[in-house]
Amino acid sequence: MRLSKMHLKTLREVPNEAEIASHVLLLRTGMIRKLVSGVYGFMPLGWRSVRKIEDIIRQEMDAAGGQEIHMSAVQPAELWQESGRWSAYGPELWRVKDRNGRDFCLGPTHEEIFTDIVRNDISSHRQLPMNLYQIQTKYRDEARPRFGLMRSREFIMKDAYSFDKDYEGLDESYRIMYEAYEKIFSRCGLTFRPVEADSGAIGGSNSHEFTALSEVGESEIAYCEKCSMAATTERAECKDDPASDEEMLPMEEVNTPETKTIEEVADFLKLDKKKTMKALLFVKYDNDGNENGYVAAFVRGDRELNMIKLVNALDIPEHAIEFADEEKMSKVTGCVGGFTGPVGLHDCIIVADSELVGARNLCAGACKENYHIKNVNYGRDFKADIVADLKVLKPGDPCPVCGAPVKHARGIEVGQVFKLGTKYSEPMKAFYKDENMKDHPIVMGCYGIGVTRTLAAVVEQHHDENGIIWPMSVAPYHVIITLVNPADETQAAVAEKIYEDLQKAGVEVLLDDRKERPGVKFKDADLLGIPVRITVGKGAAEGRVEYKLRRDAEKTEMSADAATAEAVKTVNEEK
Amino acid sequence: MRLSKMHLKTLREVPNEAEIASHVLLLRTGMIRKLVSGVYGFMPLGWRSVRKIEDIIRQEMDAAGGQEIHMSAVQPAELWQESGRWSAYGPELWRVKDRNGRDFCLGPTHEEIFTDIVRNDISSHRQLPMNLYQIQTKYRDEARPRFGLMRSREFIMKDAYSFDKDYEGLDESYRIMYEAYEKIFSRCGLTFRPVEADSGAIGGSNSHEFTALSEVGESEIAYCEKCSMAATTERAECKDDPASDEEMLPMEEVNTPETKTIEEVADFLKLDKKKTMKALLFVKYDNDGNENGYVAAFVRGDRELNMIKLVNALDIPEHAIEFADEEKMSKVTGCVGGFTGPVGLHDCIIVADSELVGARNLCAGACKENYHIKNVNYGRDFKADIVADLKVLKPGDPCPVCGAPVKHARGIEVGQVFKLGTKYSEPMKAFYKDENMKDHPIVMGCYGIGVTRTLAAVVEQHHDENGIIWPMSVAPYHVIITLVNPADETQAAVAEKIYEDLQKAGVEVLLDDRKERPGVKFKDADLLGIPVRITVGKGAAEGRVEYKLRRDAEKTEMSADAATAEAVKTVNEEK
Repeated sequence: MRLSKMHLKTLREVPNEAEIASHVLLLRTGMIRKLVSGVYGFMPLGWRSVRKIEDIIRQEMDAAGGQEIHMSAVQPAELWQESGRWSAYGPELWRVKDRNGRDFCLGPTHEEIFTDIVRNDISSHRQLPMNLYQIQTKYRDEARPRFGLMRSREFIMKDAYSFDKDYEGLDESYRIMYEAYEKIFSRCGLTFRPVEADSGAIGGSNSHEFTALSEVGESEIAYCEKCSMAATTERAECKDDPASDEEMLPMEEVNTPETKTIEEVADFLKLDKKKTMKALLFVKYDNDGNENGYVAAFVRGDRELNMIKLVNALDIPEHAIEFADEEKMSKVTGCVGGFTGPVGLHDCIIVADSELVGARNLCAGACKENYHIKNVNYGRDFKADIVADLKVLKPGDPCPVCGAPVKHARGIEVGQVFKLGTKYSEPMKAFYKDENMKDHPIVMGCYGIGVTRTLAAVVEQHHDENGIIWPMSVAPYHVIITLVNPADETQAAVAEKIYEDLQKAGVEVLLDDRKERPGVKFKDADLLGIPVRITVGKGAAEGRVEYKLRRDAEKTEMSADAATAEAVKTVNEEK
Repeated sequence: MRLSKMHLKTLREVPNEAEIASHVLLLRTGMIRKLVSGVYGFMPLGWRSVRKIEDIIRQEMDAAGGQEIHMSAVQPAELWQESGRWSAYGPELWRVKDRNGRDFCLGPTHEEIFTDIVRNDISSHRQLPMNLYQIQTKYRDEARPRFGLMRSREFIMKDAYSFDKDYEGLDESYRIMYEAYEKIFSRCGLTFRPVEADSGAIGGSNSHEFTALSEVGESEIAYCEKCSMAATTERAECKDDPASDEEMLPMEEVNTPETKTIEEVADFLKLDKKKTMKALLFVKYDNDGNENGYVAAFVRGDRELNMIKLVNALDIPEHAIEFADEEKMSKVTGCVGGFTGPVGLHDCIIVADSELVGARNLCAGACKENYHIKNVNYGRDFKADIVADLKVLKPGDPCPVCGAPVKHARGIEVGQVFKLGTKYSEPMKAFYKDENMKDHPIVMGCYGIGVTRTLAAVVEQHHDENGIIWPMSVAPYHVIITLVNPADETQAAVAEKIYEDLQKAGVEVLLDDRKERPGVKFKDADLLGIPVRITVGKGAAEGRVEYKLRRDAEKTEMSADAATAEAVKTVNEEK
């Protein structure tokens, strides 16, 4: 492609709204184009890279036995009502009506649709296992779209679904997908970690996130350098400290004026924070958004509450809970802002971190202004409706597997694999008949890749201060020929020859034949990040051109033919 | 691909809702799957054919200088308000709101988005001409979706937009697209005609529809066998009969009891229908759907009113007009149901067919129950607010170009090319600067192809009573190997060998290795319509197989190697 004929508008300046490198660079290269908040279009170069990622995914999915299909993006509410997600999904589900007032959504994911396919089409065990996938535009009506392609409202996803006779089959399907994902993200040039993850609104019992490591990522992962433990902090198990062997002392109410925080009360009473108990108060909502009771969660004073673990313990979606208005809650439950403890609390769900069960003689709020109670003990003084691990696993905490101190890192979730089990097949009645004509629910897995988010993750990991540095596999073009002076006939002829030779060799090549200053061309070449640059300038008169890889600093002078050969070799090795 | 591993569910019976061959066969082959009315998904075989059509389009668009991009399907109302189409488009525009109540639509077409691109990115004449295209899911909230992929609510379209400095440039861009379209539809195996068309809601002054000829098509075209005239009947010009040289006679009111139709009054008065005038009464609506005045349209008694010509004459969208409630209209305009004529009519827009201007002494309603007026003459007795060609060109009417009797045919509109001119660039201020830094609006064209509708059109033109007969270019697979008895080791070995050899030769091949009766396999092979069938049965013991083209009746016995070679040859010649 000749740059003089191509739609290209690069920007010198950093767009105002862009905070992270991928967003800045994809906008500055003109590869993406913002339409409204969270909605982007792809211009020629950007779309080429998207299609390359799609092709890598398609090849690996096909090799892993996947069959590509294409379902509608618009989905009828009825199917979502059947699975229960119409009410459970929350406001990110982009709900729309047709001209007759019938409810639809713009699909964020397709479990219902695919379950509907198999319940209609699969009747016999002989048809299983099966893996169906699609690459499609998806929707999530984000409250705060941000970071460009990282969290947008319209995006491209690959979603795959596996269908098996039993959980052993699912394990195998899951393993195949897990390995395909490793190949896909490696081929895209990403540095990533598969981490154990919470399954969120999609549900199911077992899942991994594929996380591209990046400081700007929205996922926080906890990992261990000693063993292979890696999990999202949302999910990472946090081991309880061993049960205490102290004697239970009698409860003692103490006056603790103006000690509303754990720090204040621990200071005031000269206690280790480990000897205190922290209360967090919430209001619950039902499916129609009406208030539906209160929740008090307790963790040890030095711990932090993990919200995901709390909602999982309550078995409700994340959006169905919010911090409570303490004054309002007080009238119902007896809580007192800053002085709430489990003793004396009533008419609310009490959820206690499992560590509290074995702890002894903790100091908790007295549900009375300016008072705490010392020596509160689980079992004797209070009981919880639910006991579960509610703790955040913090850096330095012991690894739940091997006990070594864990580390935290940030990353971008580019893919996720889930074991759904029968979460959809049971309520939606997707059954198959075994050899004895007995019905069983189909055991399902689902497997997503954010295609456009992967594009952004690649840029996050592959750029410098001058622009993008594409891995060959997803570069929009392999080679850029920078023709310094198109008006110089010798230079133009040499550049044209290289251009033709590379195209004949199957290399995707851009010829920068624009009437622009050389400085502009070099800056654009660096910004666009095409892996190989061949500069045709004054040396062309002596048959010399300059060969440079975008990722390297050094340039090499060589003959035009040698540069062509070198480019073909590099492209074929790396693409 | 082995059929035993593939998701395939063929149906023996004709689905209830399907009326036309493409709908029936795409459902029976399991290539498409209905989700709700007008919304379909594509299963593995169907999706392969869609992707082949997309690839043919992509290749020809790229060869014609198009650059592929990908804009969002969700579009903000603001852009549509700027172009004026938010109100003009009518209820087929699928309007949705986001969580903040902001208005969007699911794009049926992308003129606004593409105009917005160029007004931001194009400043200089040096950037023109340019052609951008995308292949994308589009939406139209049809009142009555029908015929499967023919008229659905979610569908795949290729839309391209050309941008030129002037109308000469547009003519050239239009010609290039016109020729690319001829190549695309030829490669898809369609028999089609490019016909002059009305431009509908997209607007602009010049357009052609590419119509795949088919009895079940919703487009009606008028064409001439003597010259090259071909036009949609909506658009086809209808020549006026020559002006009459009769003297104008004095008007004469006549009692014509119970003669509400043209037939009745012509019979009663013993007049040729050509000497009568027909009235059609309408109510207009404004953009908010409120009634906005009345319209009376007049054509000669033997003619029929062309609604598209009427709304074009009025310069309003099709949905902004409806037949009037005559009683209600009577109170405002003095019309009388069955006896309305132009004389005495008031407070409404009178639109007269151009033929009426030169006609003499016609009989028209008297706007009085049971009365007509004879010898009504345009100019002397009434005048119209608008005079225009309002007539339907009927079969046998003289060709507007050469005068020979025209014929009618039906067809499926698979593509359309439009000269938009400055319809979008003027209101949306998409300007470029010429050599002298003077601003000019960019001159645009737009070019659509219904990808999924093309798939349906191919099936309409290529099927018999047993199933589909795919042209090689868009067949989901090129060859099917029917293995009669998979339990027979010799047969299985021969079939596997052919399967491998064909794959090595780059042929796309299905191996029917299912444990099904031979009859089921032959029926499915015919139904699926794979162009080449190689049957491996008892003859395998002597090294003989059967070679058959789906389109031919005869079968040929030959060696397995000969069948493989023959298949490779046929596929390469036709694909």
